[in-house]
Amino acid sequence: MISEPVASPAFDRGLLTPVAVGHDGLVSDEAVLAALVRAELGLVRAWSLLGAVQVETADAIATAWGMDAGTDAERDGAANGDTAGAEVGHPGPDAAPWGAGSLAIDVAGLAAAAVDGGNPVIPLVSRLKQAVPPADRTWVHRGATSQDILDTAIMLVSRQAVDAVLSELGTAEASLSAFAAEHRDVVAVGRTLAQHAVPTTVGLRATVWLTGIRRARTRLRQLTLPVQLGAAAGTRASFLALGGPGATELPARYAETLGLDDAGAVWHTSRWPVTELADALTQTTDALGKLAGDVITLTRTEIAELSAGVGGGSSAMPQKSNPVAAVLIRAAALRAPQLAATMHLCATLAEDERPAGAWHAEWPTLRELLRLTLAASAHAAQLTAALRVDRDAAARNLDLTRGLILSERLSIVLAPLIGAERVATLVAEAASGADLAALVAALPEAADINIPALLDPANYTGDATATVDSATAGERPSAPHPTDEARS
Amino acid sequence: MISEPVASPAFDRGLLTPVAVGHDGLVSDEAVLAALVRAELGLVRAWSLLGAVQVETADAIATAWGMDAGTDAERDGAANGDTAGAEVGHPGPDAAPWGAGSLAIDVAGLAAAAVDGGNPVIPLVSRLKQAVPPADRTWVHRGATSQDILDTAIMLVSRQAVDAVLSELGTAEASLSAFAAEHRDVVAVGRTLAQHAVPTTVGLRATVWLTGIRRARTRLRQLTLPVQLGAAAGTRASFLALGGPGATELPARYAETLGLDDAGAVWHTSRWPVTELADALTQTTDALGKLAGDVITLTRTEIAELSAGVGGGSSAMPQKSNPVAAVLIRAAALRAPQLAATMHLCATLAEDERPAGAWHAEWPTLRELLRLTLAASAHAAQLTAALRVDRDAAARNLDLTRGLILSERLSIVLAPLIGAERVATLVAEAASGADLAALVAALPEAADINIPALLDPANYTGDATATVDSATAGERPSAPHPTDEARS
Amino acid sequence: MISEPVASPAFDRGLLTPVAVGHDGLVSDEAVLAALVRAELGLVRAWSLLGAVQVETADAIATAWGMDAGTDAERDGAANGDTAGAEVGHPGPDAAPWGAGSLAIDVAGLAAAAVDGGNPVIPLVSRLKQAVPPADRTWVHRGATSQDILDTAIMLVSRQAVDAVLSELGTAEASLSAFAAEHRDVVAVGRTLAQHAVPTTVGLRATVWLTGIRRARTRLRQLTLPVQLGAAAGTRASFLALGGPGATELPARYAETLGLDDAGAVWHTSRWPVTELADALTQTTDALGKLAGDVITLTRTEIAELSAGVGGGSSAMPQKSNPVAAVLIRAAALRAPQLAATMHLCATLAEDERPAGAWHAEWPTLRELLRLTLAASAHAAQLTAALRVDRDAAARNLDLTRGLILSERLSIVLAPLIGAERVATLVAEAASGADLAALVAALPEAADINIPALLDPANYTGDATATVDSATAGERPSAPHPTDEARS
Amino acid sequence: MISEPVASPAFDRGLLTPVAVGHDGLVSDEAVLAALVRAELGLVRAWSLLGAVQVETADAIATAWGMDAGTDAERDGAANGDTAGAEVGHPGPDAAPWGAGSLAIDVAGLAAAAVDGGNPVIPLVSRLKQAVPPADRTWVHRGATSQDILDTAIMLVSRQAVDAVLSELGTAEASLSAFAAEHRDVVAVGRTLAQHAVPTTVGLRATVWLTGIRRARTRLRQLTLPVQLGAAAGTRASFLALGGPGATELPARYAETLGLDDAGAVWHTSRWPVTELADALTQTTDALGKLAGDVITLTRTEIAELSAGVGGGSSAMPQKSNPVAAVLIRAAALRAPQLAATMHLCATLAEDERPAGAWHAEWPTLRELLRLTLAASAHAAQLTAALRVDRDAAARNLDLTRGLILSERLSIVLAPLIGAERVATLVAEAASGADLAALVAALPEAADINIPALLDPANYTGDATATVDSATAGERPSAPHPTDEARS
Repeated sequence: MISEPVASPAFDRGLLTPVAVGHDGLVSDEAVLAALVRAELGLVRAWSLLGAVQVETADAIATAWGMDAGTDAERDGAANGDTAGAEVGHPGPDAAPWGAGSLAIDVAGLAAAAVDGGNPVIPLVSRLKQAVPPADRTWVHRGATSQDILDTAIMLVSRQAVDAVLSELGTAEASLSAFAAEHRDVVAVGRTLAQHAVPTTVGLRATVWLTGIRRARTRLRQLTLPVQLGAAAGTRASFLALGGPGATELPARYAETLGLDDAGAVWHTSRWPVTELADALTQTTDALGKLAGDVITLTRTEIAELSAGVGGGSSAMPQKSNPVAAVLIRAAALRAPQLAATMHLCATLAEDERPAGAWHAEWPTLRELLRLTLAASAHAAQLTAALRVDRDAAARNLDLTRGLILSERLSIVLAPLIGAERVATLVAEAASGADLAALVAALPEAADINIPALLDPANYTGDATATVDSATAGERPSAPHPTDEARS
Repeated sequence: MISEPVASPAFDRGLLTPVAVGHDGLVSDEAVLAALVRAELGLVRAWSLLGAVQVETADAIATAWGMDAGTDAERDGAANGDTAGAEVGHPGPDAAPWGAGSLAIDVAGLAAAAVDGGNPVIPLVSRLKQAVPPADRTWVHRGATSQDILDTAIMLVSRQAVDAVLSELGTAEASLSAFAAEHRDVVAVGRTLAQHAVPTTVGLRATVWLTGIRRARTRLRQLTLPVQLGAAAGTRASFLALGGPGATELPARYAETLGLDDAGAVWHTSRWPVTELADALTQTTDALGKLAGDVITLTRTEIAELSAGVGGGSSAMPQKSNPVAAVLIRAAALRAPQLAATMHLCATLAEDERPAGAWHAEWPTLRELLRLTLAASAHAAQLTAALRVDRDAAARNLDLTRGLILSERLSIVLAPLIGAERVATLVAEAASGADLAALVAALPEAADINIPALLDPANYTGDATATVDSATAGERPSAPHPTDEARS
Repeated sequence: MISEPVASPAFDRGLLTPVAVGHDGLVSDEAVLAALVRAELGLVRAWSLLGAVQVETADAIATAWGMDAGTDAERDGAANGDTAGAEVGHPGPDAAPWGAGSLAIDVAGLAAAAVDGGNPVIPLVSRLKQAVPPADRTWVHRGATSQDILDTAIMLVSRQAVDAVLSELGTAEASLSAFAAEHRDVVAVGRTLAQHAVPTTVGLRATVWLTGIRRARTRLRQLTLPVQLGAAAGTRASFLALGGPGATELPARYAETLGLDDAGAVWHTSRWPVTELADALTQTTDALGKLAGDVITLTRTEIAELSAGVGGGSSAMPQKSNPVAAVLIRAAALRAPQLAATMHLCATLAEDERPAGAWHAEWPTLRELLRLTLAASAHAAQLTAALRVDRDAAARNLDLTRGLILSERLSIVLAPLIGAERVATLVAEAASGADLAALVAALPEAADINIPALLDPANYTGDATATVDSATAGERPSAPHPTDEARS
Repeated sequence: MISEPVASPAFDRGLLTPVAVGHDGLVSDEAVLAALVRAELGLVRAWSLLGAVQVETADAIATAWGMDAGTDAERDGAANGDTAGAEVGHPGPDAAPWGAGSLAIDVAGLAAAAVDGGNPVIPLVSRLKQAVPPADRTWVHRGATSQDILDTAIMLVSRQAVDAVLSELGTAEASLSAFAAEHRDVVAVGRTLAQHAVPTTVGLRATVWLTGIRRARTRLRQLTLPVQLGAAAGTRASFLALGGPGATELPARYAETLGLDDAGAVWHTSRWPVTELADALTQTTDALGKLAGDVITLTRTEIAELSAGVGGGSSAMPQKSNPVAAVLIRAAALRAPQLAATMHLCATLAEDERPAGAWHAEWPTLRELLRLTLAASAHAAQLTAALRVDRDAAARNLDLTRGLILSERLSIVLAPLIGAERVATLVAEAASGADLAALVAALPEAADINIPALLDPANYTGDATATVDSATAGERPSAPHPTDEARS
């Protein structure tokens, strides 16, 4: 027997996604609900900017919905001392209904009411209309289709989340830049296919992490996050029927009032705004996952060049110092690519003028991607600030192959003197236990060579130092990042 | 500045996953928490079965944790009238802490405490120990590692979820079987590459849906869902150190007390139990997604052979009858394969004796897969009960190509008489508008042919009827499904 | 008993990937081999540009490798009449070894020799050295690591493939633009969730396709496709050891001589160039898959608003006109997102200074993505040129709900006059079979309304026409696309 | 201008997939073509078994197609000395057309001819008909649809590939079993979250690898690999029209003659046979990827407990001993899960009676999965035979934390004596450099403890030895594996 669906009470509070705890308020159901209301209010404002409805009416509607008439920020947080999420727009404590003011919308109840029509906008509109005087109801959701509001709300949520990610990445960048500068001359083993290869520097390795993060940040900054406003099938016929020719300006006004982009075209079934976003988010977790993976490897008990500084012990094994932040970041990074794949699939399956399922599959998928990126970047900001280098361990590892880490250099220097074959023989002897310096010293052809200098890894780090200097030049770790700050 | 993480209050209540609302209580954070406690209590019971700890002590611990000493079901639901989820082990209402008895564990608080160590078991153990007298604390989490408890709890949750899925699929099977039997002789268009091909029957199409669901159900029934009990690195050294040689029986007792399988080997880093589960779940959503996709196509306004019976209207376009259940099922089915891919990736990346990230990425991924399968199967149970056939529409569509749906049959019958080339010419003429029956009637070679019978689609449905009869034989739609009932 | 690996003769000639047949020569193994040689030659040239080696020596090496000394294009195609792939750098006929000149490298043999070291550059270098006089061998692969050459070669292949995709997309855009312009006023049914919603136009629908393709093309144009030149661990130590401080210019010269970008940093383990490429390719197949999906739907026998013009019949069912090009494009588009996911996973798993497996998994994955995008765009260029509209079918479908396609408009117009409830009742009556126009005519409140105009779908297409005009303005379908042409 | 597609000559010979070179002949295009012909011949044989066509005619057709009339194995290999792939059914050398006898089908040409209709069966049937006398042509492809032949051929190819995988896995199992037995008492560090945790044994670790491989092998053995025989839309109407009621036996006869399973139902759009296969293949690569990942970690220069025995050096860095086989296996394992995801997506998108794209996307995807599994299992068979343990390194690593690897044991033993807090303090002191044995010796409460025994890792390996014994009992590494042998 199938029972009637009831509200799902708090399916997910982060118990199985510890990486996200405390970092995902911006994209929670409550935040999505707030954004849905902002998207509906934005539409009223846009009509108002066109002169269709009076500003006073729009203000009254804002007030009725618990929004500040002046700024359209939610009023309740500041007003009644509910502080949770005040800085992120998260509107209130756990079980409280949205909008502590006159309008109270319970997320779980709305979710339950969303099942019949398959999306939450349908029951939301009815609640929002009931909250305003009958005469004003005609201005609510005027001309819009559910997808206009839901897509726009997801963009509002994305805008805030991306800004927060940018800010966390900025912090991580500053830390890594300072870290790279501090350790620019610390020579360490470079490893390829998990084997010692040639020397590198701690600074250069940090610069590689920095490169990935910076590139991701650039992609995030360049995103277009547009409003959606196309009406039932993308023709905007209802807006024009209701507003006349002037309604062609509605999308631009809508974007303006919400602080989103105007893509110049509807994207009901041309889903590049959400796939480009998903790609940039995944590029971010790629970069952070690479960092985390290296941290995990370099904190291995046997390697121990790095310590993560934060993170967890084990009650049973107190000697352990688990690189928990890196572990959690890596867990997030392993999940992101498949979520992005789902977004692309939905884009290619965006049939007709609104797809039957592919659109719906996007919502939780993109939201989880935003969540993971928020979480991974927040932990990366902490992790990069806490990274410590064990220079002794780095030196010890460098010495582990008793000079063979320089065999490439030996080939370059000695091959012209004794031929490649004899170099190979010499290296093989050293690999079998012979003293490398002694073998070289025994070569008459190498009489002029300064053997200690030849075998000093610090002399074979290429342009690592210059690369670090260039990557860290002008970085002021303590300075704010104006662009991001302006956004957030 | 990075602020300390705070508890994530109700990240997800289903607002963006309407398919799951009301169907995912068995796998919610609260259910996971309840399973974690059951897993810990199971370990106490297993030690007790070995004689290491007295039954009275185990009972006292159960009582202290708010579990019924006799059955280890949570006590509070029955005791204090909290009915939500009583039958599914869901321990209480939304914001209430777990365990309304003496032990109160707040999910959000536990989630927040899980961040430091990267998993929720660490802080849970400390809470559980505090809830029992100091003398009994040594029996809590005795010898176990976090992974033992978490993996086992996830299997407990999976066991319940899989049973519920089996039950919903049983309902869907019964409905489809009755539907197939009812419509076994309704001839309809068979379509390949989206074009009319040859006739089929509504019954046969339903049988194809049935086949996929039955096969998935078989896979789900055959799953091994084992306890995990390997201690820190899979050697069980701590169990043996604490319990002596008899502790080798601990895993078997643990499985026994929890009603799970004993895999005979630890699976800390050999993750076949969770990937086989993920595969079977995805096979389930594949079968349901296929059904949903066909329903969506067959309810298209132009085709309209089927109506979904349930589902949503549109306020702006009251003529629409959206196949919402099918849309939501399809949305779930589009997401599942990539989640299963993540599970496999985590399995292949299960390095060392516990992986640094790949294990952690499994938890929310498998849980979401369970959720989607629960949701899709529940909606499928409703959808299949509500399917209605429009026989007039089916007949109208069959006639749309004015007989050409039988061109394959024409080839078979006429080619021996007039050659393949002349058949092709004849069909081409009919495709250009000529009357097919008249063209055949004009053939001297076809003088003996009963043309109306030849062109009756009902005479060219192969073994469709036999297949339907075989697939629906013995089905008693109203009868219970003993295996599943026994489980749930 | 494990036998020694032997060369895999022609594993894949396209038998199971018909979409790609004839369109993937640019990314075949032979093309990759040619690019590997170009990458090696480019390094010789870059050293020459630094003055380290004489131009004559570089020319001699080029000649020895069967490349034109002047342009570094392969010489043999033009020289000896082997025409296959001459314009795309594809170096020769099927079974012939690469480089019909003095150097003959057999792809299959090289592939077999690649197994031991895990990549094809190692055996290639040995073959390339053997092809030049001993004295010149020191200039071959000078200072490089395998990854430098392989990553650069893949960028060379990608550069050509992306240019070819841009050109095909340009053709498709021109066709779609002309198609949109031609059908800008053809009113058709807009469908949401597979149900009739409101009117749209064929032109607007084509504009949506156009938007997706244009956006993808922009992304492809903006790609950075850089050389890789970092030596064993990204420090470039070997280049500096061999070339002195001036060797810091080597990457820039390398990029210059090969016509690739200089990313300013090594990307051995910061894999954004390949993931950004994969993302842009997938965005392309998304856009083409959306187009293909709509074509498949709109050519359904019951809908038939569109015919694909090209594509396949069925021997057994001659009446069928399968939209084969669309089917093949869709098949490609369904595969791309998961390939892109693999690229991102490899990026996040790019551990150390070269990953043990994640790098290797990229090669065939990216290559297959390039192949699918080349194939899908080539078929899209053909498909869009062949699309035909059946205006009668479009009109017939519009009329299928006997006016109810305008129910949204009716609500907008009538609700102010008779209230929303009475509108709903009226629409429900019409849905049950009553004549809609008569129902409206019977309303005293609607006395002033021009009912035929009200119920004419052509009067309710919003700004569709303006959108089409804007999207097609300035399009000269027959004009060349200078940017792409310049590239290719 | 779009040129006509030409045949793709040898797109992929393994240059970018070195793991597969020499191991993928069973699933190459040539093998698929051979299987397509076998599938067509099998249908003739099935009709013959029903008495519809004379055995002599079937034999003559077999002969005309270059198959041995008696066994339906390809004749040419044995007959004309073409040895390539003789043991795997690979029908001939690289560029030679299929079937060196009277029938010559060029793979590339067939692939090119497949584009128009979107699948290779259409042009193949025409070639096969032309190869037999006109009177016999009616027996070729009699009643079948392309999908019957293609699906069946893919099952034939899968059957052979799965058998080969089973055989390679059998070899790997035998090697691992012997390896586990040999090293069952070699104590080594157990690592969790990349940190030293507690001791384990090399034998137990090998047993974990063994468990995964065995489970995968069981799944592979249990697969149902059925023929497909449903005609155009799954009704088998054409078979019954041509063969009368007796044709209901055709599928069973078809399965019998081809050595495949009879699923009892068509699976045109219920795609469980291919998704279950994909799942089992991925489970296999999961198990092998886990093995490979551990090998890579354990051969790290700093850890070096294991050497892979095979694999590649580096010309520039001769000291390196890259674990190439493990690297290539890992690369394969990273790609498999996303390919399996595509298979599931295609299954859920299997719309109508044959999907427009989802079916086509399966072919190359499943084939690549088969290829990767063949390749990974062949390399695993070699790798496991070559694994060598460095017992000194294992001991050195165990000692790296100077006894702290036993801190869990210390807690178990000492906590009852001195309390958990004092144990923690003691361990912390040891972690800071104090001598652990001395600290314990200084405890009056520990006077009775044999400290060297307490701190001997060999005394804290739990039931590792018993587990190894149980897993390796009865293994006769040199004995054949009857089940697999019987198959292959």
